[in-house]
Amino acid sequence: MKTSQRAQVDPFVVMDVMEAARRAEEGGRHIIHMEVGQPATGAPKVARDRLAAAMEEGPLGYTVALGLPELRAGIARLYADWYGVDLDPARVVVTSGSSAAFLLAFTALFDTGARVGLGAPGYPSYRQILKALALTPVEIQAAKGNRLQPAPQDLPADLDGLIVASPGNPSGTMLDRDALTALIDACAARDVAFVSDEIYHGIHYENRAVSALEITDDVYVINSFSKYFSMTGWRIGWMVVPPDHVRTIERLAQNMFICAPHAAQIAALGALDAHDELQGHLATYTENRRLMLEGLAEAGFVDLAPPDGAFYIYADVSAFTDDSRAFAARILDEAGVAVTPGLDFDLERGHHTLRFSYARSSEDIREGIRRLKAFMTQL
Amino acid sequence: MKTSQRAQVDPFVVMDVMEAARRAEEGGRHIIHMEVGQPATGAPKVARDRLAAAMEEGPLGYTVALGLPELRAGIARLYADWYGVDLDPARVVVTSGSSAAFLLAFTALFDTGARVGLGAPGYPSYRQILKALALTPVEIQAAKGNRLQPAPQDLPADLDGLIVASPGNPSGTMLDRDALTALIDACAARDVAFVSDEIYHGIHYENRAVSALEITDDVYVINSFSKYFSMTGWRIGWMVVPPDHVRTIERLAQNMFICAPHAAQIAALGALDAHDELQGHLATYTENRRLMLEGLAEAGFVDLAPPDGAFYIYADVSAFTDDSRAFAARILDEAGVAVTPGLDFDLERGHHTLRFSYARSSEDIREGIRRLKAFMTQL
Repeated sequence: MKTSQRAQVDPFVVMDVMEAARRAEEGGRHIIHMEVGQPATGAPKVARDRLAAAMEEGPLGYTVALGLPELRAGIARLYADWYGVDLDPARVVVTSGSSAAFLLAFTALFDTGARVGLGAPGYPSYRQILKALALTPVEIQAAKGNRLQPAPQDLPADLDGLIVASPGNPSGTMLDRDALTALIDACAARDVAFVSDEIYHGIHYENRAVSALEITDDVYVINSFSKYFSMTGWRIGWMVVPPDHVRTIERLAQNMFICAPHAAQIAALGALDAHDELQGHLATYTENRRLMLEGLAEAGFVDLAPPDGAFYIYADVSAFTDDSRAFAARILDEAGVAVTPGLDFDLERGHHTLRFSYARSSEDIREGIRRLKAFMTQL
Repeated sequence: MKTSQRAQVDPFVVMDVMEAARRAEEGGRHIIHMEVGQPATGAPKVARDRLAAAMEEGPLGYTVALGLPELRAGIARLYADWYGVDLDPARVVVTSGSSAAFLLAFTALFDTGARVGLGAPGYPSYRQILKALALTPVEIQAAKGNRLQPAPQDLPADLDGLIVASPGNPSGTMLDRDALTALIDACAARDVAFVSDEIYHGIHYENRAVSALEITDDVYVINSFSKYFSMTGWRIGWMVVPPDHVRTIERLAQNMFICAPHAAQIAALGALDAHDELQGHLATYTENRRLMLEGLAEAGFVDLAPPDGAFYIYADVSAFTDDSRAFAARILDEAGVAVTPGLDFDLERGHHTLRFSYARSSEDIREGIRRLKAFMTQL
């Protein structure tokens, strides 16, 4: 048997970093992990307690495809609390993480060969999922002057869709209300389907993130319990779709997924009540961000945009290297800090960028900064 | 925004039955559920205990894309225990239920427009997932003389792939070693990729189910913890692929799913040790099958093949109706028993078939049989 053409997706460069870090740790070295895009914390206590109780109450069989009604209602309430948006729970689709939401959204919106725009730098899996679904990813080089977010004038003429993340990964930068509105309007005017990846909402610093749902109902919004709610491995997320798309998504979800994991849906219900614990995590990220911005500047990483949200800093390191992969390998080897080369996020310009993640403990961040400074001094 | 052509998948007819049953129950009626394709039992106790402990030990973050190494090893050992097959754990891919395995397998094997054969009657989601992935499902009418399983002479000339389920859903019939070998050989001779859905393995009665891996390594085998291991809502399954396909699947899985639910992977590890509890469920299904075969015959449902495995009986009811949907509605209304019309499984012949599921308690089965007999007497 042969594999298909569309299955030939690119490997993640960060996997090599993670494997090298693992080998170093196996060899007895202590490594600070600034490559991993997930919180060091687990699911909130109230989420775990809720699942522990539910497991003993009865079988966790299939749920209906769109998710537990109570969870959909709870998610809809978030939109009132976070954005002042009155959202009908019937438009909320519970998914197996944002991954399943992307699969559903792209399948529901685009036929074979459709051209879907995505900003570079950006989350690498957009490109690969689009390719696997026989769609055509169209990279849009986002300008530094726009803090690495796409702008209306960047859009090519012949797009069928656009996916935008605010806060972005790897940049952490956000589109403010005006910038997001301008993009949405530009897409609407050209009949381009708009998908808003809001997976880092809840993790923002000086200003709050703006949801596309504050601007229009004619949009797919994707979010997840992975980041703010600290539940990466549970594979539980959601999507909000236009009212007249719900039935289509329901049928697709019934067939493609049956339902999101029931156990994770129960835990997510608990997580909605974990405000204090989650705000504690946010306080850690806020402190980590302060430490990173100060420490990276002192270490000499000065070509970067301070992140508005998420837990990443994306730095231009062209002053030091033209080969981010080799530079990251050297930082791991000489400083004992694992960082991600930009190549995963931007095929064109990623050879002179690095992504630093600050999702771990502040103690780790302090030690990582200390090591990075020492490394840069001897460079 | 518009939805895509490929998103226009068919609704499940059984959903109307389930909704009618729900309304009847809301109105105070007692309904026996013979429509639902899942065990009434939950995850084994040892599975739940293992997860409860793991939740308190540390965060359940992302696992590697192919799954926890310990779980992959445990699954590989099943092949030794069940079939005497020595399987390299490196070929085992842990997935978010068999649903994710189908998405991965079809994406890895087939490019746009590829023609993939599937037996009718069969699991309806094959057809819809293929369509959603821009592939062309090719229905193969399986003969009653072959107990509703496809045979080499049924295969059209221009297939790119074939998916076969043994035991089958809705029929419960199995391909014995000779029949499975003949199909695999016919596919290999024509360069047709072979996908073996073995989700009901472990639930078989007079003879044991034969795995395609006993016959060849050049095959995709899909299985799940949903049925024998009684973990439907957990969304945890697996796939075994040829050695030279592992890397392709790993990259696809990293991008399309990141990983299967960590919590479900932990619970599945526990389930591998739940032999006695699971054999207890099997004893229930065995008794239910006996009750059903005896009771359905007495009720007048005589045109059926006794199932070799799974927990379904598929009956030809053309002696009583040409409209299985209306007949099922009448059985629900007059007898208070929910059954599935054959239309979901076979577009051509399903208007005169019904599927009875016997996955619930034996007490429910006895009461259901009593009601079906009374209904058929007054017919």
